Amino acid sequence: MKLQHGTPSDIENASMQIIAQELAASSIRIHKENAAVVRRVIHATADFDYAFNLRFSDGAVLCGMKALMAHTPIITDTNMALAGISKPALGKLRCEAHCFMADSDIAASARANGTTRAAAAMEYAAANYPGAIYSIGNAPTALFKLADQIGAGLRPALVIAVPVGFVNVVEGKERIWRVCLSCGVPIIAAMGRKGGSTVAAAIANALLYAASEMQDPAARGWN
Amino acid sequence: MKLQHGTPSDIENASMQIIAQELAASSIRIHKENAAVVRRVIHATADFDYAFNLRFSDGAVLCGMKALMAHTPIITDTNMALAGISKPALGKLRCEAHCFMADSDIAASARANGTTRAAAAMEYAAANYPGAIYSIGNAPTALFKLADQIGAGLRPALVIAVPVGFVNVVEGKERIWRVCLSCGVPIIAAMGRKGGSTVAAAIANALLYAASEMQDPAARGWN
Repeated sequence: MKLQHGTPSDIENASMQIIAQELAASSIRIHKENAAVVRRVIHATADFDYAFNLRFSDGAVLCGMKALMAHTPIITDTNMALAGISKPALGKLRCEAHCFMADSDIAASARANGTTRAAAAMEYAAANYPGAIYSIGNAPTALFKLADQIGAGLRPALVIAVPVGFVNVVEGKERIWRVCLSCGVPIIAAMGRKGGSTVAAAIANALLYAASEMQDPAARGWN
Repeated sequence: MKLQHGTPSDIENASMQIIAQELAASSIRIHKENAAVVRRVIHATADFDYAFNLRFSDGAVLCGMKALMAHTPIITDTNMALAGISKPALGKLRCEAHCFMADSDIAASARANGTTRAAAAMEYAAANYPGAIYSIGNAPTALFKLADQIGAGLRPALVIAVPVGFVNVVEGKERIWRVCLSCGVPIIAAMGRKGGSTVAAAIANALLYAASEMQDPAARGWN
């Protein structure tokens, strides 16, 4: 589709309309509560597979929105996902996002404990931000560590489990899905191989936009 | 696939082997020179569509590698792509990467000229880094601006044209592909709707790793 003289916001609205139309024309049926997240992930990837791959525990989207309205921080496992989360949307809800992967303390702790930086970063985050939203788009080791922590009593507001990859990724997402369900922790996961920092950021942004809109219905976006 | 006790580097090697095997088992034939880029994009997305979508002008990969060995800077259109480019690999080749999108001067110039920040950032980059590698993963307006600049005489070392989206994106990629070909500017593009900051960073990283390896064959990675 070609749009002459469109602003970025015109382009985004037109894109979301195309996505909604193509989803409606297909046989895919998406729960109303989850539609904004699915649309935003497809917007970020142009990949309609996510209409099938994304799995939501009951009420996960609403839990995420409520947590953001209560200024819950978001923890990511990559600086790339952190860079992709909308700073104006975070500011509007007085939320913060953090990634500890590149901290020198984390690298030292990973070396000392013979673990990955991603796992060490999760350990640090679990100790310091136990009720945060965890948005994991890259490291399966972060998922395994988070699953262990949840098994041991950690209760994040929401887990976004969307690493991409070919090794340990499918297993990591299935493990954290089961652990979250059995412990009552809300979870949004991209089952299978696909995912990534783009997907982790897109899901966080969809929740931020929906929470902003719930707080201020005049600021209607594509949610 | 499950790998016990794998380091991130073991996991990456095993992933690249799986990708190479699945490509070999398919009917897809990829030019040897382009294989490392295709594999790394699939590694970053788990999406084998890129084996079809990625299009390379003749010698584009080698041009990119040579430019990086000559310390050519990389310009991105998002901080997300910038965050995804390997800092150790940049450092090894004494290259730099820049994104001007978030600069306050750029926002002011976009407002003053009634254009987008992406287009204003490209204008600034073209004036200050005319021979750079341009890696565009998000904004079709950046592609249109870059195509205009190339038409007017700009000669980047390489254009990586991989925005994702539903509006103006297919058109933008086709336009810059034609302009680059007619002006003799090397280009790697993801034709169609798919792409994104992840893809822009993955292509830049594949070139950085290949250039590092050419410079120092002992540092063999998956290229």
